[in-house]
Amino acid sequence: MRKQERAERTRRALIHSAAAAFDEYGYASSRVSGISARAGVSTGAFHFHFEDKESLAAAVESEAREALLTITRCADSSDEPALQVLADASHAMVSRLRSDLVVRAGFRLSCDVVDATRSDLRSQWQDFVRRQLMRAGSEGALAEGVAPQDAATVITASTTGLEVLGRGDQEWLSRESVTAFWRLLMPRLAASHMVGRLDPAGSDVTAGDGDAYAAPAVPQVAERAAS
Amino acid sequence: MRKQERAERTRRALIHSAAAAFDEYGYASSRVSGISARAGVSTGAFHFHFEDKESLAAAVESEAREALLTITRCADSSDEPALQVLADASHAMVSRLRSDLVVRAGFRLSCDVVDATRSDLRSQWQDFVRRQLMRAGSEGALAEGVAPQDAATVITASTTGLEVLGRGDQEWLSRESVTAFWRLLMPRLAASHMVGRLDPAGSDVTAGDGDAYAAPAVPQVAERAAS
Repeated sequence: MRKQERAERTRRALIHSAAAAFDEYGYASSRVSGISARAGVSTGAFHFHFEDKESLAAAVESEAREALLTITRCADSSDEPALQVLADASHAMVSRLRSDLVVRAGFRLSCDVVDATRSDLRSQWQDFVRRQLMRAGSEGALAEGVAPQDAATVITASTTGLEVLGRGDQEWLSRESVTAFWRLLMPRLAASHMVGRLDPAGSDVTAGDGDAYAAPAVPQVAERAAS
Repeated sequence: MRKQERAERTRRALIHSAAAAFDEYGYASSRVSGISARAGVSTGAFHFHFEDKESLAAAVESEAREALLTITRCADSSDEPALQVLADASHAMVSRLRSDLVVRAGFRLSCDVVDATRSDLRSQWQDFVRRQLMRAGSEGALAEGVAPQDAATVITASTTGLEVLGRGDQEWLSRESVTAFWRLLMPRLAASHMVGRLDPAGSDVTAGDGDAYAAPAVPQVAERAAS
């Protein structure tokens, strides 16, 4: 293995180990020594890659941000109806939270750490939700009397709640939860000519058993852990 | 002042000071020395009242639990329609989160600390929501096709989301947010003969300017802080 490749593997192992620690104990209670040991790396090697715990947390958040950006960019470029795009993106995000430790830890960090300069995952999601609801409004796809801003409040609050509750019980991060949410909300949000065209279970999620998501990120995570 | 009274005041000052620290920095980053200093109490006096940070956190959570229990017990004994009881209780809880530092810190602890033996504020709320929705179902007050369990998922997730988002921006804990939530959800949840009888702004919240709640707990908190 080339030196550069090996360095990249170690860096990824540290990010994964940090994510596991942050996800389990929170940022403040996690220690650089424990994170390094878990990654099978000396503290010296740690400092070759990261200045301190803070910069490691920034790397975890940055990975989570990239994952979220991939989901929202892909969604923003879709020409499906905006409400379907929103449902699909929320399924994709929750599925990713369920399967990818680094994304889950990134969101938890964004709640734990008080650092306003760090770009916030939650507000990135919130902006996306607001944008799609404005689009739904201009498409004439919202039911009469539904204000895009009210809908954005409810959708942002609910998806945040699923993420937080999912820390204690992964059942909250199931496809069933997200589908229940949209099954309830869709007929209220959507103009009557739209309702039949929208699928609360998501239009682009690989079909599962209804209880779980297909989890494409798991093998990647396992590979990280082993490296 | 009698000795017992003074001891009780010191105990309350420590609980309030701990709540302020937990709310601001999280549990793990808060120190007994800082909490004592903030309460104007020596570390020796601290240990007269509490064994350690853990037992102080338990006292904060216990106060928050009492506050939540008062809201849900009072709601459980109401003979208003269950959906109105739910709306009123969510307004009361969010208003309390906004105005009472100890309750806010209690909820945050329930997210920060990994201790399964400690009774969970969130599940207390979740049980209440589920109970009221079952009651709404047996009242025949739910719209056709609305499963009480789906509705419980959405309401629990949304109220949890408001609580968490409210840490960064109190606007989420405004009466306006909670009203927007019910304005959107009520017409979907309620059977048509019920919709006109339900008030998304809450039937028993003191009327405010629409943006804020009357905050009865604030003077109490101020008194605590000064004691």
